[in-house]
Amino acid sequence: MNTHTFTPTANAIASATLARAAHTVAPALEAAVGRLSPALQGPVLHHLAGGGKGVRAALALVSATAAGATEETGVVGAVAIELVHNFSLIHDDIMDGDTERRHRSTVWSEFGVGPAIIVGDALAALALQVLLDEPTAERVEAARCLVQATQVMIAGQADDMAFESRDAITVQECLDMEFAKTSALLSCAVSLGPILAGAPDGTIAALAEFGSHFGTAFQAVDDMLGIWGEPSRTGKPVGNDLLQHKKTLPVSIALARAGDDALELRALLGGDLSPADVARARVLIEECGARAETIALADAHLDMALAALERVELVAGPKSELVAIAQFATERDR
Amino acid sequence: MNTHTFTPTANAIASATLARAAHTVAPALEAAVGRLSPALQGPVLHHLAGGGKGVRAALALVSATAAGATEETGVVGAVAIELVHNFSLIHDDIMDGDTERRHRSTVWSEFGVGPAIIVGDALAALALQVLLDEPTAERVEAARCLVQATQVMIAGQADDMAFESRDAITVQECLDMEFAKTSALLSCAVSLGPILAGAPDGTIAALAEFGSHFGTAFQAVDDMLGIWGEPSRTGKPVGNDLLQHKKTLPVSIALARAGDDALELRALLGGDLSPADVARARVLIEECGARAETIALADAHLDMALAALERVELVAGPKSELVAIAQFATERDR
Repeated sequence: MNTHTFTPTANAIASATLARAAHTVAPALEAAVGRLSPALQGPVLHHLAGGGKGVRAALALVSATAAGATEETGVVGAVAIELVHNFSLIHDDIMDGDTERRHRSTVWSEFGVGPAIIVGDALAALALQVLLDEPTAERVEAARCLVQATQVMIAGQADDMAFESRDAITVQECLDMEFAKTSALLSCAVSLGPILAGAPDGTIAALAEFGSHFGTAFQAVDDMLGIWGEPSRTGKPVGNDLLQHKKTLPVSIALARAGDDALELRALLGGDLSPADVARARVLIEECGARAETIALADAHLDMALAALERVELVAGPKSELVAIAQFATERDR
Repeated sequence: MNTHTFTPTANAIASATLARAAHTVAPALEAAVGRLSPALQGPVLHHLAGGGKGVRAALALVSATAAGATEETGVVGAVAIELVHNFSLIHDDIMDGDTERRHRSTVWSEFGVGPAIIVGDALAALALQVLLDEPTAERVEAARCLVQATQVMIAGQADDMAFESRDAITVQECLDMEFAKTSALLSCAVSLGPILAGAPDGTIAALAEFGSHFGTAFQAVDDMLGIWGEPSRTGKPVGNDLLQHKKTLPVSIALARAGDDALELRALLGGDLSPADVARARVLIEECGARAETIALADAHLDMALAALERVELVAGPKSELVAIAQFATERDR
């Protein structure tokens, strides 16, 4: 179990912060989307109407205020990181064959694969356009951070896809892939605030480390939802990650065990899974302790994330918002 | 003894320039690709092994020397523009369902749609990484130019795709789409040299205008190849653009004519085309004068491109190379 003592208001702080950030970022995000070719705006708005928590945008805003700047300083970074995140979701949905996200049809399933490819491409380019509109030293540095993180994220997505056709991967391979796929962009989100604020390197590094560990915890929790999450909540079929042969953290931990259960799991994941197969795979993963180990790993990385925030001086209010968002998004808020 | 003055043809100058540029750019391009995740390099190298004339890279190099800088100054721009161009080809081939390019299997048909999407994404990000590695004022400006041109290109590709399902488009709609799809990136290619060279705005503007008109001429010639080109040369089936219901310039001109022939053409292009349909469509487009009008339009834009080069002072040798490349690539070199 996590050793942190959580205030009962973490959930409330996080929810309020995310709502405030979404409200602050929305006009700038809409203005950015409005720069796209009219033909592309429809699919983008269809996608964005699905909502999403806006964690990355909030991190970009709050990391700016944590570094002593105004929230406004982080807005351009928040818009850029949301654009990149949504570009990756739109392309991921094609690659994964997902027809629904956030209880809505995905862009490719609604408009076709070609339009979904081009819409994702447009959002990726738009993110850089937004940052480079006014090429101050801070914004250029933010663009460098974002394009670097984007490249790492793409490498992680490529590995994630390649791992689907492998029998098993090591836990380390999984952690590396998940760091690339998720943590790099979250780390960038929390770096954008201090970068745009012109904060000292030490502050940027500490916030980047916070984001990196938070990302690992966040992805571990997401992996659990991909296996045990309620469809009503995830917006995806029961055991969706298992159906897609995703080698997520619980799966890679379970497959690394010795014994017949691991062999049975490997055989189940080697073919198309029936609902009974999904149920059996869930039991196998849970009984070998892989679920508990995944939770423990998420807790450990959340602790490391919070510890990173203690290494530098940050504005108290925003700092507590960062803590609350991390706890909320990793479901350690209750 | 007669003194024989040998004037090399535009073709010879262009071929030599393209070969020299390809040789100069290759090591930097390979180094850039080497930065990608190993899993992505295979598909990229498969794609790049198909060759291609390297017109955009050559324009970036030669435009630097035309503005008085060394060729080396343009190399980073040449690499970046080739990366963006190849990203667009890889994604276009998915969207168009093309299984072959340059007589080789396309990335999606060889490796799958998912890997082709992600490989294209990686090249697009890599182009910006390369430029922003050393964020000098010139390179940042080059990145701004490139990301802006990329966004315009994406809008053009979206229109190109959307037009496939329309009965007809106006000639102006076609010209606007083709400007966006092709001319914007070619204009950027010729701007990158002077931008990286820190040349005066007037020089950048004149070269950008050269690239813009050259792009329109280039696309018009490409449109003719898409209808009348030899498969042995284009690497695509006979009348490939007609099979795909592409509303290219000859088609949009022909459809805009009054009379029964235009109605017959519209009907032919409204469904799947047999080889006999392709042959008949070719005749209809040619007999109404649309082929000749397309050639005339290409010639007019080539003239405007060359005129733009006269507006500013450029280094003579590189300037003649730009002229030769424009003539060669628009098949006006003999």
